[in-house]
Amino acid sequence: METGRRIDGKKTAGEIRLEIAEAVKKMHAEGRRAPHLAAVLVGNDGGSETYVSYKVKDCKEVGFDSTLIRRPSDVSESELLELVKGLNENDEVDGFIVQLPLPKHIDTQKIITAINPDKDVDGFHPVNVGRMVLGLPGYISATPFGIVELIKRNGISTSGKHCVVIGRSNIVGTPMSILLSRNTEFGNATVTLCHSRTPNLKEMTLSADILIAATGRPGSVTGDMVKPGAVVIDVGTTRVPDADRKSGYALKGDVLFDEVSKVSSAITPVPGGVGPMTRVGLLLNTLKAATANLR
Amino acid sequence: METGRRIDGKKTAGEIRLEIAEAVKKMHAEGRRAPHLAAVLVGNDGGSETYVSYKVKDCKEVGFDSTLIRRPSDVSESELLELVKGLNENDEVDGFIVQLPLPKHIDTQKIITAINPDKDVDGFHPVNVGRMVLGLPGYISATPFGIVELIKRNGISTSGKHCVVIGRSNIVGTPMSILLSRNTEFGNATVTLCHSRTPNLKEMTLSADILIAATGRPGSVTGDMVKPGAVVIDVGTTRVPDADRKSGYALKGDVLFDEVSKVSSAITPVPGGVGPMTRVGLLLNTLKAATANLR
Repeated sequence: METGRRIDGKKTAGEIRLEIAEAVKKMHAEGRRAPHLAAVLVGNDGGSETYVSYKVKDCKEVGFDSTLIRRPSDVSESELLELVKGLNENDEVDGFIVQLPLPKHIDTQKIITAINPDKDVDGFHPVNVGRMVLGLPGYISATPFGIVELIKRNGISTSGKHCVVIGRSNIVGTPMSILLSRNTEFGNATVTLCHSRTPNLKEMTLSADILIAATGRPGSVTGDMVKPGAVVIDVGTTRVPDADRKSGYALKGDVLFDEVSKVSSAITPVPGGVGPMTRVGLLLNTLKAATANLR
Repeated sequence: METGRRIDGKKTAGEIRLEIAEAVKKMHAEGRRAPHLAAVLVGNDGGSETYVSYKVKDCKEVGFDSTLIRRPSDVSESELLELVKGLNENDEVDGFIVQLPLPKHIDTQKIITAINPDKDVDGFHPVNVGRMVLGLPGYISATPFGIVELIKRNGISTSGKHCVVIGRSNIVGTPMSILLSRNTEFGNATVTLCHSRTPNLKEMTLSADILIAATGRPGSVTGDMVKPGAVVIDVGTTRVPDADRKSGYALKGDVLFDEVSKVSSAITPVPGGVGPMTRVGLLLNTLKAATANLR
Protein backbone atom coordinates (compact mmCIF):
# COMPACT_ATOMS: atom_id res chain seq x y z
CA MET A 1 0.00 0.00 0.00
CA GLU A 2 1.23 3.44 -0.87
CA THR A 3 1.34 5.42 2.35
CA GLY A 4 1.58 9.04 3.16
CA ARG A 5 0.99 10.59 -0.26
CA ARG A 6 1.39 14.29 0.33
CA ILE A 7 -1.67 16.33 -0.56
CA ASP A 8 0.02 19.46 -1.80
CA GLY A 9 -2.19 22.38 -0.79
CA LYS A 10 0.34 24.90 -2.00
CA LYS A 11 0.30 23.40 -5.48
CA THR A 12 -3.49 23.16 -5.63
CA ALA A 13 -3.82 26.71 -4.33
CA GLY A 14 -1.34 27.87 -6.97
CA GLU A 15 -3.45 26.31 -9.73
CA ILE A 16 -6.58 28.01 -8.41
CA ARG A 17 -4.76 31.35 -8.21
CA LEU A 18 -3.91 31.06 -11.89
CA GLU A 19 -7.55 30.34 -12.70
CA ILE A 20 -8.62 33.38 -10.69
CA ALA A 21 -6.04 35.59 -12.43
CA GLU A 22 -7.42 34.34 -15.78
CA ALA A 23 -10.95 35.22 -14.68
CA VAL A 24 -9.82 38.74 -13.76
CA LYS A 25 -8.17 39.19 -17.16
CA LYS A 26 -11.43 38.11 -18.77
CA MET A 27 -13.33 40.67 -16.68
CA HIS A 28 -10.99 43.41 -17.85
CA ALA A 29 -11.37 42.24 -21.46
CA GLU A 30 -15.12 42.63 -21.00
CA GLY A 31 -14.60 46.18 -19.80
CA ARG A 32 -15.30 45.38 -16.17
CA ARG A 33 -13.22 46.47 -13.21
CA ALA A 34 -11.27 43.98 -11.09
CA PRO A 35 -12.86 42.37 -8.02
CA HIS A 36 -12.28 44.53 -4.96
CA LEU A 37 -11.76 43.24 -1.43
CA ALA A 38 -11.65 45.55 1.58
CA ALA A 39 -10.18 44.47 4.90
CA VAL A 40 -10.78 46.22 8.21
CA LEU A 41 -7.97 45.85 10.73
CA VAL A 42 -8.49 47.09 14.28
CA GLY A 43 -5.41 47.59 16.47
CA ASN A 44 -1.98 46.06 15.99
CA ASP A 45 -2.25 42.40 16.92
CA GLY A 46 0.76 40.59 15.41
CA GLY A 47 -1.18 37.63 14.06
CA SER A 48 -3.88 39.83 12.57
CA GLU A 49 -1.27 42.09 10.93
CA THR A 50 0.28 39.03 9.27
CA TYR A 51 -3.02 37.56 8.09
CA VAL A 52 -4.26 40.84 6.66
CA SER A 53 -0.97 41.49 4.91
CA TYR A 54 -1.27 38.04 3.26
CA LYS A 55 -4.77 38.91 2.13
CA VAL A 56 -3.63 42.18 0.55
CA LYS A 57 -0.68 40.42 -1.08
CA ASP A 58 -2.91 37.61 -2.40
CA CYS A 59 -5.27 40.14 -3.95
CA LYS A 60 -2.42 41.89 -5.71
CA GLU A 61 -1.06 38.63 -7.06
CA VAL A 62 -4.31 37.60 -8.77
CA GLY A 63 -5.12 41.11 -9.95
CA PHE A 64 -7.80 42.06 -7.42
CA ASP A 65 -8.03 45.54 -5.99
CA SER A 66 -7.76 45.69 -2.23
CA THR A 67 -8.19 48.34 0.42
CA LEU A 68 -6.83 48.05 3.92
CA ILE A 69 -8.73 50.15 6.44
CA ARG A 70 -7.02 50.58 9.80
CA ARG A 71 -8.63 51.72 13.01
CA PRO A 72 -6.93 52.09 16.42
CA SER A 73 -7.65 49.47 19.09
CA ASP A 74 -9.77 51.99 21.00
CA VAL A 75 -12.17 52.51 18.08
CA SER A 76 -15.76 52.63 19.36
CA GLU A 77 -18.33 50.03 18.40
CA SER A 78 -20.53 52.67 16.81
CA GLU A 79 -17.65 53.96 14.68
CA LEU A 80 -16.97 50.43 13.50
CA LEU A 81 -20.66 49.90 12.72
CA GLU A 82 -20.63 53.11 10.67
CA LEU A 83 -17.59 51.86 8.79
CA VAL A 84 -19.34 48.56 8.03
CA LYS A 85 -22.42 50.44 6.86
CA GLY A 86 -20.27 52.52 4.53
CA LEU A 87 -18.69 49.41 3.03
CA ASN A 88 -22.11 47.79 2.63
CA GLU A 89 -23.20 50.79 0.59
CA ASN A 90 -20.00 51.26 -1.39
CA ASP A 91 -20.58 49.85 -4.88
CA GLU A 92 -16.84 49.87 -5.56
CA VAL A 93 -16.31 47.24 -2.87
CA ASP A 94 -17.47 43.72 -3.81
CA GLY A 95 -16.71 42.03 -0.53
CA PHE A 96 -15.06 42.86 2.76
CA ILE A 97 -13.85 41.29 5.96
CA VAL A 98 -13.39 42.58 9.48
CA GLN A 99 -10.28 40.82 10.78
CA LEU A 100 -10.92 38.95 14.04
CA PRO A 101 -10.35 38.97 16.95
CA LEU A 102 -11.73 42.41 17.80
CA PRO A 103 -10.92 44.25 21.06
CA LYS A 104 -13.00 43.12 24.02
CA HIS A 105 -15.10 46.29 24.23
CA ILE A 106 -16.61 45.53 20.84
CA ASP A 107 -19.47 43.06 20.36
CA THR A 108 -18.03 40.90 17.56
CA GLN A 109 -21.37 39.29 16.71
CA LYS A 110 -22.97 42.72 16.34
CA ILE A 111 -20.30 43.74 13.84
CA ILE A 112 -20.59 40.49 11.87
CA THR A 113 -24.37 40.73 11.74
CA ALA A 114 -24.11 44.31 10.46
CA ILE A 115 -22.24 43.16 7.35
CA ASN A 116 -24.40 42.83 4.24
CA PRO A 117 -24.52 39.02 3.84
CA ASP A 118 -23.96 39.42 0.11
CA LYS A 119 -20.60 41.11 0.80
CA ASP A 120 -19.69 38.81 3.70
CA VAL A 121 -16.81 36.98 1.98
CA ASP A 122 -15.69 35.52 5.33
CA GLY A 123 -19.04 33.68 5.45
CA PHE A 124 -19.45 34.41 9.16
CA HIS A 125 -22.87 36.09 9.00
CA PRO A 126 -25.63 33.80 10.38
CA VAL A 127 -27.51 33.98 7.09
CA ASN A 128 -24.49 32.61 5.22
CA VAL A 129 -24.08 29.84 7.78
CA GLY A 130 -27.77 29.00 7.32
CA ARG A 131 -27.48 29.10 3.53
CA MET A 132 -24.58 26.66 3.73
CA VAL A 133 -26.62 24.25 5.87
CA LEU A 134 -29.59 24.51 3.50
CA GLY A 135 -27.46 24.24 0.35
CA LEU A 136 -28.48 27.70 -0.86
CA PRO A 137 -26.14 30.09 -2.72
CA GLY A 138 -23.96 32.06 -0.33
CA TYR A 139 -20.45 32.23 1.07
CA ILE A 140 -18.77 29.33 2.82
CA SER A 141 -16.02 30.47 5.12
CA ALA A 142 -12.52 30.25 3.72
CA THR A 143 -11.10 27.23 5.54
CA PRO A 144 -13.97 24.75 4.96
CA PHE A 145 -14.34 26.10 1.41
CA GLY A 146 -10.63 25.60 0.82
CA ILE A 147 -10.73 22.06 2.22
CA VAL A 148 -13.65 21.14 -0.05
CA GLU A 149 -11.65 22.44 -3.04
CA LEU A 150 -8.59 20.51 -1.87
CA ILE A 151 -10.65 17.31 -1.67
CA LYS A 152 -12.24 17.94 -5.08
CA ARG A 153 -9.00 18.66 -6.88
CA ASN A 154 -6.97 15.84 -5.38
CA GLY A 155 -9.25 13.00 -6.37
CA ILE A 156 -10.42 12.22 -2.86
CA SER A 157 -13.80 10.53 -2.97
CA THR A 158 -16.12 11.27 -0.04
CA SER A 159 -19.37 9.54 -1.02
CA GLY A 160 -20.20 6.68 1.34
CA LYS A 161 -17.00 7.22 3.30
CA HIS A 162 -16.90 7.63 7.06
CA CYS A 163 -15.52 11.05 7.79
CA VAL A 164 -14.50 11.95 11.32
CA VAL A 165 -14.01 15.61 12.19
CA ILE A 166 -12.20 16.50 15.42
CA GLY A 167 -13.12 19.94 16.72
CA ARG A 168 -16.50 21.69 16.64
CA SER A 169 -15.52 25.32 16.06
CA ASN A 170 -17.94 27.58 14.21
CA ILE A 171 -15.37 28.39 11.56
CA VAL A 172 -13.90 24.96 10.79
CA GLY A 173 -15.11 21.77 12.48
CA THR A 174 -18.84 22.39 12.46
CA PRO A 175 -19.14 23.68 8.88
CA MET A 176 -16.83 20.87 7.63
CA SER A 177 -19.05 18.26 9.28
CA ILE A 178 -22.12 19.78 7.65
CA LEU A 179 -20.61 20.18 4.17
CA LEU A 180 -19.33 16.61 4.02
CA SER A 181 -22.75 15.21 4.90
CA ARG A 182 -24.72 17.17 2.26
CA ASN A 183 -26.07 15.49 -0.85
CA THR A 184 -23.49 16.99 -3.18
CA GLU A 185 -20.79 15.66 -5.45
CA PHE A 186 -18.17 16.24 -2.78
CA GLY A 187 -20.33 15.36 0.20
CA ASN A 188 -22.44 12.26 0.84
CA ALA A 189 -20.10 11.08 3.59
CA THR A 190 -21.30 9.62 6.86
CA VAL A 191 -19.92 12.21 9.25
CA THR A 192 -18.98 12.00 12.92
CA LEU A 193 -18.20 15.21 14.79
CA CYS A 194 -15.88 14.71 17.77
CA HIS A 195 -14.77 17.32 20.29
CA SER A 196 -13.40 17.93 23.77
CA ARG A 197 -16.29 15.99 25.33
CA THR A 198 -15.74 12.86 23.25
CA PRO A 199 -14.55 10.22 25.74
CA ASN A 200 -13.40 7.59 23.23
CA LEU A 201 -11.69 9.75 20.62
CA LYS A 202 -9.24 7.09 19.48
CA GLU A 203 -12.03 4.59 18.88
CA MET A 204 -13.78 7.18 16.73
CA THR A 205 -10.73 8.28 14.74
CA LEU A 206 -9.75 4.65 14.07
CA SER A 207 -13.03 4.18 12.22
CA ALA A 208 -12.40 7.15 9.89
CA ASP A 209 -11.79 6.76 6.16
CA ILE A 210 -11.21 10.51 6.10
CA LEU A 211 -9.96 12.23 9.23
CA ILE A 212 -10.09 16.00 9.61
CA ALA A 213 -8.19 17.38 12.58
CA ALA A 214 -9.19 20.88 13.67
CA THR A 215 -8.48 21.15 17.37
CA GLY A 216 -5.51 23.52 17.46
CA ARG A 217 -3.60 21.10 19.70
CA PRO A 218 -0.24 20.52 18.01
CA GLY A 219 0.67 16.89 17.45
CA SER A 220 -2.42 15.55 19.21
CA VAL A 221 -3.32 13.13 16.42
CA THR A 222 -0.82 10.29 16.64
CA GLY A 223 -0.13 7.30 14.40
CA ASP A 224 -2.03 4.84 16.57
CA MET A 225 -5.20 6.91 16.16
CA VAL A 226 -5.37 6.52 12.39
CA LYS A 227 -6.77 3.63 10.36
CA PRO A 228 -4.28 2.32 7.79
CA GLY A 229 -5.06 3.84 4.42
CA ALA A 230 -7.08 6.77 5.77
CA VAL A 231 -6.91 10.25 4.24
CA VAL A 232 -5.83 12.82 6.83
CA ILE A 233 -6.50 16.55 6.57
CA ASP A 234 -4.65 18.66 9.13
CA VAL A 235 -6.29 22.03 9.76
CA GLY A 236 -4.05 22.96 12.69
CA THR A 237 -1.70 25.90 12.31
CA THR A 238 -0.47 26.68 15.79
CA ARG A 239 2.52 28.97 16.24
CA VAL A 240 5.05 27.23 18.42
CA PRO A 241 8.13 29.17 19.61
CA ASP A 242 11.23 28.11 17.67
CA ALA A 243 14.48 29.99 18.34
CA ASP A 244 16.09 28.48 15.22
CA ARG A 245 13.79 30.41 12.93
CA LYS A 246 14.02 34.01 11.91
CA SER A 247 10.33 34.51 12.66
CA GLY A 248 10.85 33.05 16.14
CA TYR A 249 8.16 30.44 15.66
CA ALA A 250 7.25 27.34 13.66
CA LEU A 251 3.79 26.41 12.39
CA LYS A 252 2.63 23.10 13.86
CA GLY A 253 -0.32 21.02 12.73
CA ASP A 254 -2.66 18.97 14.91
CA VAL A 255 -1.26 15.80 13.36
CA LEU A 256 2.08 14.20 14.23
CA PHE A 257 3.11 14.09 10.58
CA ASP A 258 6.05 11.69 10.79
CA GLU A 259 3.99 9.00 12.51
CA VAL A 260 0.69 9.49 10.74
CA SER A 261 2.13 9.76 7.23
CA LYS A 262 3.35 6.17 7.63
CA VAL A 263 -0.21 4.94 8.20
CA SER A 264 -2.34 7.20 6.03
CA SER A 265 -2.81 6.85 2.28
CA ALA A 266 -2.72 10.62 1.84
CA ILE A 267 -2.07 13.52 4.18
CA THR A 268 -1.80 17.31 4.12
CA PRO A 269 1.44 18.77 5.50
CA VAL A 270 1.70 21.84 7.75
CA PRO A 271 2.68 24.26 6.37
CA GLY A 272 1.70 23.81 2.73
CA GLY A 273 -1.59 21.96 3.19
CA VAL A 274 -4.80 23.59 4.34
CA GLY A 275 -3.22 27.02 4.97
CA PRO A 276 -2.74 28.03 1.32
CA MET A 277 -6.22 26.68 0.56
CA THR A 278 -7.75 28.93 3.23
CA ARG A 279 -6.08 31.91 1.59
CA VAL A 280 -7.39 30.90 -1.80
CA GLY A 281 -10.84 30.33 -0.30
CA LEU A 282 -11.12 34.04 0.46
CA LEU A 283 -10.04 34.89 -3.08
CA LEU A 284 -12.67 32.55 -4.52
CA ASN A 285 -15.35 34.16 -2.36
CA THR A 286 -14.25 37.63 -3.47
CA LEU A 287 -14.37 36.59 -7.12
CA LYS A 288 -17.86 35.23 -6.47
CA ALA A 289 -18.87 38.51 -4.85
CA ALA A 290 -17.73 40.39 -7.94
CA THR A 291 -19.33 38.08 -10.48
CA ALA A 292 -22.19 36.11 -8.98
CA ASN A 293 -25.62 37.55 -8.97
CA LEU A 294 -25.91 37.46 -5.19
CA ARG A 295 -26.80 41.11 -4.89
CA MET B 1 -31.61 -4.35 32.72
CA GLU B 2 -34.85 -2.48 32.42
CA THR B 3 -35.74 -2.42 28.73
CA GLY B 4 -38.06 -0.38 26.63
CA ARG B 5 -39.07 2.35 29.08
CA ARG B 6 -41.60 4.39 27.17
CA ILE B 7 -40.65 8.03 26.77
CA ASP B 8 -44.09 9.58 26.96
CA GLY B 9 -44.08 12.56 24.60
CA LYS B 10 -47.76 13.14 25.10
CA LYS B 11 -47.31 13.48 28.86
CA THR B 12 -44.26 15.75 28.55
CA ALA B 13 -46.04 17.88 25.96
CA GLY B 14 -49.05 18.12 28.29
CA GLU B 15 -46.84 19.42 31.09
CA ILE B 16 -45.32 22.05 28.78
CA ARG B 17 -48.76 23.11 27.57
CA LEU B 18 -49.77 23.77 31.18
CA GLU B 19 -46.65 25.88 31.68
CA ILE B 20 -47.42 27.84 28.53
CA ALA B 21 -51.03 28.39 29.64
CA GLU B 22 -49.69 29.70 32.97
CA ALA B 23 -47.36 32.07 31.15
CA VAL B 24 -50.30 33.41 29.12
CA LYS B 25 -52.32 33.99 32.29
CA LYS B 26 -49.39 35.90 33.70
CA MET B 27 -49.21 38.02 30.56
CA HIS B 28 -52.89 38.87 30.90
CA ALA B 29 -52.39 39.71 34.60
CA GLU B 30 -49.67 42.14 33.49
CA GLY B 31 -52.15 43.76 31.11
CA ARG B 32 -50.58 42.27 28.00
CA ARG B 33 -52.44 40.58 25.19
CA ALA B 34 -52.06 36.86 24.48
CA PRO B 35 -49.42 35.60 22.04
CA HIS B 36 -50.78 35.53 18.51
CA LEU B 37 -49.86 32.97 15.85
CA ALA B 38 -50.97 33.36 12.23
CA ALA B 39 -50.94 30.42 9.82
CA VAL B 40 -51.11 30.74 6.05
CA LEU B 41 -52.68 27.76 4.28
CA VAL B 42 -52.54 27.59 0.50
CA GLY B 43 -54.89 25.17 -1.26
CA ASN B 44 -56.62 22.14 0.24
CA ASP B 45 -53.99 19.45 0.74
CA GLY B 46 -55.40 16.92 3.22
CA GLY B 47 -52.26 16.64 5.34
CA SER B 48 -51.77 20.39 5.47
CA GLU B 49 -55.42 20.92 6.46
CA THR B 50 -54.94 18.50 9.36
CA TYR B 51 -51.65 20.01 10.53
CA VAL B 52 -52.95 23.56 10.43
CA SER B 53 -56.14 22.61 12.24
CA TYR B 54 -53.99 21.08 15.02
CA LYS B 55 -51.99 24.29 15.24
CA VAL B 56 -55.13 26.40 15.60
CA LYS B 57 -56.55 24.00 18.18
CA ASP B 58 -53.28 23.97 20.12
CA CYS B 59 -53.26 27.77 20.26
CA LYS B 60 -56.80 27.86 21.59
CA GLU B 61 -56.00 25.28 24.27
CA VAL B 62 -53.11 27.27 25.76
CA GLY B 63 -54.85 30.63 25.39
CA PHE B 64 -53.01 31.99 22.33
CA ASP B 65 -54.81 33.95 19.67
CA SER B 66 -54.58 32.46 16.22
CA THR B 67 -55.53 33.53 12.72
CA LEU B 68 -55.89 31.13 9.82
CA ILE B 69 -55.39 32.80 6.46
CA ARG B 70 -56.48 30.74 3.46
CA ARG B 71 -55.51 31.30 -0.14
CA PRO B 72 -56.54 29.20 -3.15
CA SER B 73 -53.97 26.85 -4.69
CA ASP B 74 -53.64 29.16 -7.69
CA VAL B 75 -52.56 32.13 -5.58
CA SER B 76 -49.69 33.96 -7.28
CA GLU B 77 -46.24 34.16 -5.78
CA SER B 78 -46.42 37.94 -5.64
CA GLU B 79 -49.75 37.84 -3.77
CA LEU B 80 -48.24 35.45 -1.26
CA LEU B 81 -45.18 37.69 -0.86
CA GLU B 82 -47.50 40.63 -0.20
CA LEU B 83 -49.33 38.61 2.41
CA VAL B 84 -46.03 37.73 4.12
CA LYS B 85 -45.01 41.39 4.04
CA GLY B 86 -48.29 42.36 5.67
CA LEU B 87 -47.77 39.82 8.45
CA ASN B 88 -44.19 41.01 8.95
CA GLU B 89 -45.51 44.52 9.53
CA ASN B 90 -48.54 43.59 11.60
CA ASP B 91 -47.73 44.31 15.24
CA GLU B 92 -50.69 42.25 16.39
CA VAL B 93 -49.07 39.08 15.01
CA ASP B 94 -46.12 37.79 17.04
CA GLY B 95 -45.19 34.92 14.79
CA PHE B 96 -46.50 33.19 11.70
CA ILE B 97 -46.00 30.15 9.55
CA VAL B 98 -46.65 29.40 5.90
CA GLN B 99 -47.73 25.77 5.83
CA LEU B 100 -45.62 23.64 3.48
CA PRO B 101 -45.66 22.19 0.87
CA LEU B 102 -46.64 25.08 -1.39
CA PRO B 103 -47.93 24.58 -4.95
CA LYS B 104 -45.23 23.97 -7.54
CA HIS B 105 -45.55 27.36 -9.24
CA ILE B 106 -44.40 29.07 -6.05
CA ASP B 107 -40.72 29.37 -5.07
CA THR B 108 -40.87 28.07 -1.49
CA GLN B 109 -37.45 29.38 -0.56
CA LYS B 110 -38.39 32.86 -1.77
CA ILE B 111 -41.45 32.83 0.51
CA ILE B 112 -39.49 31.56 3.51
CA THR B 113 -36.75 34.13 3.00
CA ALA B 114 -39.36 36.90 2.85
CA ILE B 115 -40.52 36.13 6.39
CA ASN B 116 -39.10 38.45 9.05
CA PRO B 117 -36.68 36.08 10.84
CA ASP B 118 -37.89 37.42 14.19
CA LYS B 119 -41.43 36.21 13.38
CA ASP B 120 -40.29 32.96 11.75
CA VAL B 121 -41.59 30.58 14.43
CA ASP B 122 -41.05 27.61 12.08
CA GLY B 123 -37.33 28.40 12.21
CA PHE B 124 -36.95 27.74 8.47
CA HIS B 125 -35.38 31.09 7.49
CA PRO B 126 -31.64 30.73 6.71
CA VAL B 127 -30.78 33.28 9.39
CA ASN B 128 -32.50 31.17 12.04
CA VAL B 129 -30.72 28.05 10.81
CA GLY B 130 -27.44 29.97 11.04
CA ARG B 131 -28.28 31.30 14.50
CA MET B 132 -28.92 27.74 15.66
CA VAL B 133 -25.54 26.57 14.34
CA LEU B 134 -23.77 29.51 15.98
CA GLY B 135 -25.67 29.20 19.27
CA LEU B 136 -27.24 32.65 18.90
CA PRO B 137 -30.79 33.52 20.03
CA GLY B 138 -33.36 32.59 17.39
CA TYR B 139 -35.95 29.96 16.55
CA ILE B 140 -35.17 26.27 16.29
CA SER B 141 -37.69 24.45 14.13
CA ALA B 142 -40.43 22.66 16.01
CA THR B 143 -39.36 19.01 15.72
CA PRO B 144 -35.70 19.35 16.78
CA PHE B 145 -36.75 21.85 19.44
CA GLY B 146 -39.39 19.41 20.70
CA ILE B 147 -36.89 16.54 20.77
CA VAL B 148 -34.40 18.60 22.77
CA GLU B 149 -37.17 19.39 25.29
CA LEU B 150 -38.15 15.71 25.40
CA ILE B 151 -34.54 14.73 26.14
CA LYS B 152 -34.21 17.47 28.78
CA ARG B 153 -37.39 16.62 30.61
CA ASN B 154 -36.97 12.85 30.62
CA GLY B 155 -33.60 12.73 32.29
CA ILE B 156 -31.70 11.60 29.21
CA SER B 157 -28.06 12.59 29.48
CA THR B 158 -26.34 13.43 26.19
CA SER B 159 -22.90 14.66 27.29
CA GLY B 160 -20.12 12.35 26.11
CA LYS B 161 -22.64 9.95 24.58
CA HIS B 162 -22.44 8.74 20.99
CA CYS B 163 -25.53 9.91 19.21
CA VAL B 164 -26.38 8.54 15.78
CA VAL B 165 -28.92 10.41 13.68
CA ILE B 166 -30.40 8.64 10.63
CA GLY B 167 -31.67 11.06 8.01
CA ARG B 168 -30.18 14.38 6.93
CA SER B 169 -33.29 16.45 6.21
CA ASN B 170 -33.10 20.20 6.69
CA ILE B 171 -35.97 20.18 9.15
CA VAL B 172 -35.05 17.23 11.39
CA GLY B 173 -31.89 15.17 10.90
CA THR B 174 -29.41 17.92 10.14
CA PRO B 175 -30.50 20.36 12.88
CA MET B 176 -30.71 17.48 15.41
CA SER B 177 -27.14 16.46 14.59
CA ILE B 178 -25.95 20.03 15.07
CA LEU B 179 -27.86 20.69 18.31
CA LEU B 180 -26.62 17.52 20.00
CA SER B 181 -23.00 18.37 19.25
CA ARG B 182 -23.09 21.94 20.63
CA ASN B 183 -21.45 22.83 23.91
CA THR B 184 -24.71 23.13 25.83
CA GLU B 185 -26.27 21.42 28.79
CA PHE B 186 -28.24 19.15 26.49
CA GLY B 187 -25.62 18.77 23.80
CA ASN B 188 -21.98 17.73 24.12
CA ALA B 189 -22.63 14.40 22.40
CA THR B 190 -20.34 12.90 19.79
CA VAL B 191 -22.68 12.90 16.81
CA THR B 192 -22.75 10.77 13.68
CA LEU B 193 -25.09 11.76 10.86
CA CYS B 194 -26.12 8.81 8.65
CA HIS B 195 -28.25 8.94 5.51
CA SER B 196 -29.20 7.15 2.32
CA ARG B 197 -25.54 7.05 1.20
CA THR B 198 -24.30 5.39 4.37
CA PRO B 199 -23.20 1.90 3.28
CA ASN B 200 -22.80 0.36 6.75
CA LEU B 201 -25.84 1.73 8.55
CA LYS B 202 -26.22 -1.17 10.95
CA GLU B 203 -22.59 -0.91 12.07
CA MET B 204 -23.18 2.78 12.80
CA THR B 205 -26.49 2.37 14.61
CA LEU B 206 -25.07 -0.45 16.76
CA SER B 207 -22.52 2.00 18.15
CA ALA B 208 -25.18 4.52 19.25
CA ASP B 209 -25.94 5.29 22.87
CA ILE B 210 -28.74 7.51 21.57
CA LEU B 211 -30.34 6.69 18.22
CA ILE B 212 -32.53 9.19 16.43
CA ALA B 213 -34.44 7.81 13.46
CA ALA B 214 -35.70 10.40 10.98
CA THR B 215 -35.89 8.72 7.60
CA GLY B 216 -39.63 8.44 7.02
CA ARG B 217 -39.25 4.73 6.18
CA PRO B 218 -41.71 2.88 8.43
CA GLY B 219 -40.21 0.06 10.46
CA SER B 220 -36.77 0.41 8.92
CA VAL B 221 -34.96 0.41 12.27
CA THR B 222 -35.08 -3.19 13.51
CA GLY B 223 -34.06 -4.79 16.81
CA ASP B 224 -30.75 -6.12 15.50
CA MET B 225 -29.67 -2.56 14.63
CA VAL B 226 -29.84 -1.28 18.20
CA LYS B 227 -27.24 -1.59 20.96
CA PRO B 228 -28.69 -3.06 24.15
CA GLY B 229 -29.53 -0.23 26.53
CA ALA B 230 -29.63 2.50 23.89
CA VAL B 231 -32.14 5.34 23.98
CA VAL B 232 -34.22 5.42 20.79
CA ILE B 233 -36.08 8.48 19.51
CA ASP B 234 -38.44 7.77 16.63
CA VAL B 235 -39.20 10.85 14.53
CA GLY B 236 -41.08 8.96 11.80
CA THR B 237 -44.78 9.65 11.35
CA THR B 238 -45.71 8.08 8.06
CA ARG B 239 -49.37 7.61 7.19
CA VAL B 240 -49.91 3.99 6.22
CA PRO B 241 -53.32 2.94 4.82
CA ASP B 242 -55.31 1.03 7.44
CA ALA B 243 -58.86 0.01 6.56
CA ASP B 244 -59.59 -0.83 10.20
CA ARG B 245 -59.37 2.79 11.24
CA LYS B 246 -61.98 5.48 10.82
CA SER B 247 -59.32 7.86 9.42
CA GLY B 248 -58.33 5.22 6.87
CA TYR B 249 -54.69 5.29 7.95
CA ALA B 250 -52.35 4.51 10.83
CA LEU B 251 -49.29 6.51 11.87
CA LYS B 252 -46.12 4.43 11.63
CA GLY B 253 -42.73 5.28 13.04
CA ASP B 254 -39.35 4.54 11.49
CA VAL B 255 -38.66 2.10 14.33
CA LEU B 256 -40.09 -1.41 14.62
CA PHE B 257 -41.33 -0.76 18.14
CA ASP B 258 -42.06 -4.30 19.28
CA GLU B 259 -38.56 -5.49 18.46
CA VAL B 260 -36.56 -2.42 19.41
CA SER B 261 -38.35 -1.79 22.72
CA LYS B 262 -37.00 -5.18 23.92
CA VAL B 263 -33.42 -3.98 23.35
CA SER B 264 -33.50 -0.27 24.16
CA SER B 265 -33.45 1.21 27.66
CA ALA B 266 -35.93 3.90 26.62
CA ILE B 267 -37.93 4.54 23.46
CA THR B 268 -40.50 6.98 22.10
CA PRO B 269 -43.69 5.43 20.74
CA VAL B 270 -45.49 6.49 17.56
CA PRO B 271 -47.97 8.05 18.03
CA GLY B 272 -47.44 9.76 21.38
CA GLY B 273 -43.70 10.37 21.22
CA VAL B 274 -42.09 13.06 19.09
CA GLY B 275 -45.36 14.16 17.41
CA PRO B 276 -46.87 15.92 20.44
CA MET B 277 -43.47 17.48 21.16
CA THR B 278 -43.33 18.95 17.64
CA ARG B 279 -46.73 20.56 18.23
CA VAL B 280 -45.57 22.00 21.53
CA GLY B 281 -42.33 23.18 19.88
CA LEU B 282 -44.33 25.60 17.73
CA LEU B 283 -46.19 26.85 20.78
CA LEU B 284 -42.92 27.47 22.63
CA ASN B 285 -41.57 29.41 19.66
CA THR B 286 -44.73 31.50 19.51
CA LEU B 287 -44.51 32.26 23.21
CA LYS B 288 -40.89 33.26 22.67
CA ALA B 289 -41.93 35.52 19.78
CA ALA B 290 -44.42 37.25 22.06
CA THR B 291 -42.12 37.64 25.04
CA ALA B 292 -38.48 37.53 23.99
CA ASN B 293 -36.69 40.63 22.99
CA LEU B 294 -35.88 39.31 19.53
CA ARG B 295 -37.42 42.25 17.73
